[in-house]
Parts: sequence; C-alpha cells; structure tokens
Amino acid sequence: MNIPARPTRRYEYADDGSAIYAEAFATIRAEGSFTHLPSDAEKVAVRMVHGTGQVDLARDLVVHPRLVSSARAALEAGAPILTDAHMVASGVTRARLRRDNEVVCLLRDERVPALARSFGTTRSAAAVSLWGDRLDGALVAIGNAPTALFHLLEMLLDGAPRPAAIIGCPVGFVGAADAKDSLRASGLPALSNVSEKGGSAVAVAAFNALLRIASKPEKESS
Amino acid sequence: MNIPARPTRRYEYADDGSAIYAEAFATIRAEGSFTHLPSDAEKVAVRMVHGTGQVDLARDLVVHPRLVSSARAALEAGAPILTDAHMVASGVTRARLRRDNEVVCLLRDERVPALARSFGTTRSAAAVSLWGDRLDGALVAIGNAPTALFHLLEMLLDGAPRPAAIIGCPVGFVGAADAKDSLRASGLPALSNVSEKGGSAVAVAAFNALLRIASKPEKESS
Repeated sequence: MNIPARPTRRYEYADDGSAIYAEAFATIRAEGSFTHLPSDAEKVAVRMVHGTGQVDLARDLVVHPRLVSSARAALEAGAPILTDAHMVASGVTRARLRRDNEVVCLLRDERVPALARSFGTTRSAAAVSLWGDRLDGALVAIGNAPTALFHLLEMLLDGAPRPAAIIGCPVGFVGAADAKDSLRASGLPALSNVSEKGGSAVAVAAFNALLRIASKPEKESS
Repeated sequence: MNIPARPTRRYEYADDGSAIYAEAFATIRAEGSFTHLPSDAEKVAVRMVHGTGQVDLARDLVVHPRLVSSARAALEAGAPILTDAHMVASGVTRARLRRDNEVVCLLRDERVPALARSFGTTRSAAAVSLWGDRLDGALVAIGNAPTALFHLLEMLLDGAPRPAAIIGCPVGFVGAADAKDSLRASGLPALSNVSEKGGSAVAVAAFNALLRIASKPEKESS
C-alpha cells in the first residue's frame, strides 16, 4: 500500500492534539463540579469526564481521601492491576506502567464457567475468586459487573488479602448503585460513582488518570 | 492455587445472569425513549443504554433507516471491522463473528506517528488513512476521536471506497458533536448520537448489538 495523502480539507475542525486537550479540559473544568473531591483527585475526575463526555459524572463521584496516594504507592511498588473486563485491561496505558505491573483479567480462564455454575453466580464474579493472593496490595478496577464488586467485598469480609486501591465503576440497572454504596461503606480506599452509570470506559479513564499522576514527581501531582 | 469457595453471603443482590439481563432490559425500556428510532434499531439502543448506564443516550441516538440491514449484510459477507481505538477492537464479541471477520485497529501501526506529523493531525486520524481498500463494504466503529471521523468523511468525499455501515460515537468537548453532525449530513448508513457523549464503551455496545442481530434469523431480529 502506498503512503496516503491527507484528504482535501472539507470541514473546519481542530486537529492539533495538544490544543484539543487543552480546550477540552478548560471546558470540563468550567462545566463540571469538582469541589467536593479530594484535591489530588480532581485531575482524575476531569479525565473521567473527558473519556466519556459525561459532565454530570463529576458531581456523582466519591473519592476516598487516601485513594490517590495509595494507588500511587501501589503502582510504584509494582503491584498488579486486577480487572473484571478485558476492555478495561485493554485500555490501560501500558507505556505508563513504569514497574511493568501485571494487568490481569481472568474472565476467560478455563476454570471460570464451572466455578460460576458451582457458585450460582456470574462468570465475572467467579473470575474475581481466582485473583487469590494477587489481591494483596493490588490495584483493582471494576468497570463492568456489579456482581464482581459484591463478590470481591464478600471475599474481603471473609479475610481475603486487601487491595491498595479500588476503582469501582460497574454499570447497570440491577445492583450497580447498591454495589458501589457497599464499596463506600467498606471504608477501603476507593473511587466510585453514585448511580447506575459506569462501564469500562469510565473505569479506564480513572485508572489511566491515576497512572498519569503516579508517573510524575509527587509535588506536581496534586 | 486451590479452587476457591464462594465467600459468605453478606449482601442481598441478584447473581443470576439471565435474570439480571431481563430485569435490566425491562427497566431500560420503561425509562428510555426509543420511539424515534427505526424499529430494527431499538434493540441496539437498549444495549447501548445497558452498556453505559446512560438512559438519556437513547433519546439522543440517530439511526439511519438502512443501518441495521446494511450492517447485517456486511457482517454476513465477511466484511472487516475497522475501528479507531484498541478498546473498541478489544470489546468486539469475537464468538459472534460467524465469518471470522477481521477486526482492525491501526493506531499502533509503525507508519502512524510520521503520517500524523506530515498531515498535521492526530494519530487517530492518520491511522484511518491506512484503512485503504479495506474500507470497501466495511463496518466502521469510531468510539474515540472526532478527528478520525472527520478524516474518514473527508476521505470519502475524495472518493475513498464506501463502508457499508458506520457507528460514529466519538467522544468529547472539541469536535465530537460537529463530527457526528457531519456524519449524519453525509447520508451514509450510520448510527450516531447528538452530543459530546460517546466513547469506546458506547461504540462497542452498539457494534455488539448489531452482531447479535446479525447472528439471528432475519424475522427474529426486528
């Protein structure tokens, strides 16, 4: 295939990546509500709005005061990243994983279908059971299944190793809001939103924002 | 690792996948607005709300009358699936691709950085230029960059081969709404939404809903 030429310009649109980011972030900061968040989490919220076009997501976010610092420390310690969905794993900006942290989604593990049947729950929840000792000090990002988040919280109440930080943004009209309520009640360092909204793009935007913060010297990150 | 046991039940929540789907879809149909859509596209809209928790997305969707039939025919003909983002490619339900259709995202192609510099545009747009003849009869799913959609429309106006169907759900506060307006004005068989909302999860939900429709006999799909 020959190297193509740029097509004839027909539309007026911004095509400079840096300028697009700057203008988008200015719009988001002007339109969104961020003052209820810990100061070190504001940038995370801006990126979440940016990644989904949902201005009202900012208002609905709840971020634990130690979420950002705990996630940063875990990333720097090389902790694994555990997620319930392949789309979340796919979206993680690998180039920013300075410790080459492992990114784990076990949804297609061969043990999952039988485990889900024997548990009487979803495959997403069964896959969480297989995280095992990797949970210790891990970063968890749940962007799909409410059942995965409930299952994780029940494992933790049974004494499973504690993750360092949890992004809890499962989506949906059955259980998602309740699962996120329960996550907040757990007191764990977590980021979540108050509603049925969520999903893989929401979780990835949050996670990559944390990665970006962790890749900068501490005093610049707040 | 030993096979784990299900943790102690601590929360009341639905854990039966089929029942969760049924309840969620009933809620979405009760709360969302779908009557403005072609009848064969209603299921697509329901899945988009389901995948993102955004009830108001339904109202903002615009679906070309031939979008579903054209996408179905293209899938059955084995057409490739072209996308601007790896998260979109990652989310495509491979098991439903009955013709083993190729899923293509060229964002990491080695030619892209130089092409973007020489064009003076984003890497997402430059990567679209590399789709070339694969565009002919393809299914396009744009779930990230407004510049990628504008670039595609300009290529088509310059005479590039025409895709069979376009899911145009780029996200953002700079150009996304305009790019989707221009897509609709093109008259191509397309699905898009009227606002800054969008993103990879939105595009994937739409695409996988089309896949699901295409995998069923025609009379059941409407």
